[in-house]
Amino acid sequence: MLAPDLRQVPTLRPYLVARSQFADGSDTPRDHLERCLAALDIWEPRVDAFVHLNIDGARAAADAATARWADGRPLSPIDGMPLGIKDIIETIDMPTENGSPLYAGWRSDRDAASVVALREAGAVILGKTVTTEFAAREPRGTRNPWDVERTPGGSSSGSAAAVAAGMVSAALGTQVIGSTIRPASYCGCIGFKPTVGALNRGGSHDNMSQSCTGLLAANLEDAWQVAYEIAIRAGGDPGYPGLFGPAEAPAASKPRRLAFLETAAWSGAEEGAKQRMTDAVARLKGAGIAVITRHDSASVAAAETALVEAGAVSMSINDWEGRWPLNTYRDRDAEKLSKLARGRLAKAEAMSLDEYRRLLKERDKIRAAYAALPGECDACVTLSASGPAPVGLTFTGDASFAVPFSLLGVPAISLPLFWLDGLPLGLQVTGFAHGDAATFATAAAIVGLLDGAVDARPV
Amino acid sequence: MLAPDLRQVPTLRPYLVARSQFADGSDTPRDHLERCLAALDIWEPRVDAFVHLNIDGARAAADAATARWADGRPLSPIDGMPLGIKDIIETIDMPTENGSPLYAGWRSDRDAASVVALREAGAVILGKTVTTEFAAREPRGTRNPWDVERTPGGSSSGSAAAVAAGMVSAALGTQVIGSTIRPASYCGCIGFKPTVGALNRGGSHDNMSQSCTGLLAANLEDAWQVAYEIAIRAGGDPGYPGLFGPAEAPAASKPRRLAFLETAAWSGAEEGAKQRMTDAVARLKGAGIAVITRHDSASVAAAETALVEAGAVSMSINDWEGRWPLNTYRDRDAEKLSKLARGRLAKAEAMSLDEYRRLLKERDKIRAAYAALPGECDACVTLSASGPAPVGLTFTGDASFAVPFSLLGVPAISLPLFWLDGLPLGLQVTGFAHGDAATFATAAAIVGLLDGAVDARPV
Repeated sequence: MLAPDLRQVPTLRPYLVARSQFADGSDTPRDHLERCLAALDIWEPRVDAFVHLNIDGARAAADAATARWADGRPLSPIDGMPLGIKDIIETIDMPTENGSPLYAGWRSDRDAASVVALREAGAVILGKTVTTEFAAREPRGTRNPWDVERTPGGSSSGSAAAVAAGMVSAALGTQVIGSTIRPASYCGCIGFKPTVGALNRGGSHDNMSQSCTGLLAANLEDAWQVAYEIAIRAGGDPGYPGLFGPAEAPAASKPRRLAFLETAAWSGAEEGAKQRMTDAVARLKGAGIAVITRHDSASVAAAETALVEAGAVSMSINDWEGRWPLNTYRDRDAEKLSKLARGRLAKAEAMSLDEYRRLLKERDKIRAAYAALPGECDACVTLSASGPAPVGLTFTGDASFAVPFSLLGVPAISLPLFWLDGLPLGLQVTGFAHGDAATFATAAAIVGLLDGAVDARPV
Repeated sequence: MLAPDLRQVPTLRPYLVARSQFADGSDTPRDHLERCLAALDIWEPRVDAFVHLNIDGARAAADAATARWADGRPLSPIDGMPLGIKDIIETIDMPTENGSPLYAGWRSDRDAASVVALREAGAVILGKTVTTEFAAREPRGTRNPWDVERTPGGSSSGSAAAVAAGMVSAALGTQVIGSTIRPASYCGCIGFKPTVGALNRGGSHDNMSQSCTGLLAANLEDAWQVAYEIAIRAGGDPGYPGLFGPAEAPAASKPRRLAFLETAAWSGAEEGAKQRMTDAVARLKGAGIAVITRHDSASVAAAETALVEAGAVSMSINDWEGRWPLNTYRDRDAEKLSKLARGRLAKAEAMSLDEYRRLLKERDKIRAAYAALPGECDACVTLSASGPAPVGLTFTGDASFAVPFSLLGVPAISLPLFWLDGLPLGLQVTGFAHGDAATFATAAAIVGLLDGAVDARPV
């Protein structure tokens, strides 16, 4: 058999499009699942996106959804949607292994808050997707479906690869540095990292203050709907008001003004990537959108300056916050921690609480600089990554375009609009805290203006 | 054998007092532990404070601490201190059962963040203490050592009973409504609920926004030191600056001015309890401290008015935030949830995200009213509970004096200063966010002024 080429297979139809045929039975959730399973047969042996699958359970759930749609009584717009769940998020029917031998075969015997909500909305949980070790840096072997010699990015590696290859309609990921935006960019799907705290992390094994549950999906509508269905049933993290926004994906709304943030990552980006972004900005301007930069606005310049430290501050905050549970895992069996994890723990143990407090103040200052932008622009745009997925599976790639918005705790969306050397690359749209819906509306407008205009998908 | 009477046995010497003899070997951590184990032999069969014990592990840890003290190289001032850990907090060497048959025998194979920190400080983890079901209302049988026909309070039932009976020097509890302050009051020990977020809850199964790890201890110094040793090693919850304060318990500092808050609970308090509090206020005034009330200060009056809703708002916030994991536990085996838990879940499932958002705003308003007080007073005082522990083991008692300060997220300390009908009752000192050390200093001054002055412990 020839190696399959993602360029030569039909993409999975977005679920919210497919559902228009569910009422008359000309399509069904079960048929949709079977298309996913056909893609799984082709792609899973090549990309290793899943740690565990529950195909029988998924078929039963899809049949139940099919019956509800036929009855005209779906539980929600995503009733029957096949989903992957990042393997740091607990599921009652499958193990949660955290990408670590310490959790081999471990079962929590419960669903995470987001997973309960999704099942209540009728979603079909097909499997657990590969995560790097504890959602950090050590990769666990998933390959990029566009080129299996390349990384899919991390840490939501399996979620992005599974969505890109059409094995599921959408998948839960998480992000604390760049773990949703980067794999979305590398795999050519939508990545959505919401406002920090917007989706309940109960039962998700990421306990850091910048971390949040995110979405990988085939299109914006599916991404929004899955997030919305979680939020109304499970809310956000305790004490947070949860995701704000409408019951259906926000309609495109052309922004009046955008800020193009180069960020500290710009100088390290590939020339082709910079060219794609520069062309896109020119086209947005051509469409009548004002695009300001650090050269036009003192506020944008101040935000750019403040964000230079975002990577270093985020990494150090994560080090301290990750001291536990790495320390108890080390006490249990240090041999089962990667060298990267042991190194992070050593750094954490050399830190003091006072140093962490200083970092929190630093983060507050950076957030304050960005919080001055809403008067200047409706949203910001930049690259999602410094280039397409790099060759090799030992490094999940550079997250420096994603980390500023993780630190800021603001919504970020990666749009698969660019192609470079036959590989996808994302344009990142970022908004302001709790403005997730407005960010979606802007992103939808940008897709409308640019899709196919910058450069065509190489089918 | 006659039933033992706590009035007729010597109390355990505070650990920070005992340690003065550790260097010359005239006392040792092992000897201290053996005194605890002697108390355990007498009291545990009567009060059922522990779910699991690790006596061999505790003796080995105490021996190691003994050697370190003899070497003049203790790991911390609490090196060798015997502790109990509330059974919603994970321990690597013992199960964590959450007071629920769903968790019977369940092992996390890791220590919670606070427990790792305590072990690094040399503390001796003697056992897991009884909690009500999921730290909520359903009691799990622990009895009050002052009268075994009475509740020890909840949800940190075993922690308070174990400390009161001298089976451990201190114990970790948690509080989201009144779960540390109420059992401390009923059992006659120190209870310390810190500023919300001040002690890292990683690996503690309480995921609510008002919840925090607290301390039960024999005296203020021991309580402070345990909290401090956790904070410098594990910090606070991710994103929070952690407990602020000195490396040793703050010295007593006589307040210039206190606010006596009656709270909405006053009208329901027992006459004897109100009399004790009124007498105490008179004595504090007699000692030269200005004590203001709602009648003297518009700010205090406004805070009192705002706090009337604290109980209802807290309960509803907890209902929503407790929807998960109760929903996944119900999906797993509803029969293993108490009727109380199923009732809370039903209430949660009838709530909307919008209603929760309204409650958060309500909480913010109440917090803002209380936040006006620091200009008026150094701290606040009130009762810790409406009276001594009630008779019966099916109800953990009225938490209405504790809940305002849980909602506010401010430090609260219960001091075992009152006696009523031969039973202990606490005076509660409350401070302001991050002012835990100042609250301790005020509490220490109040102990100095009132201990033995209000009414003597009935020995």
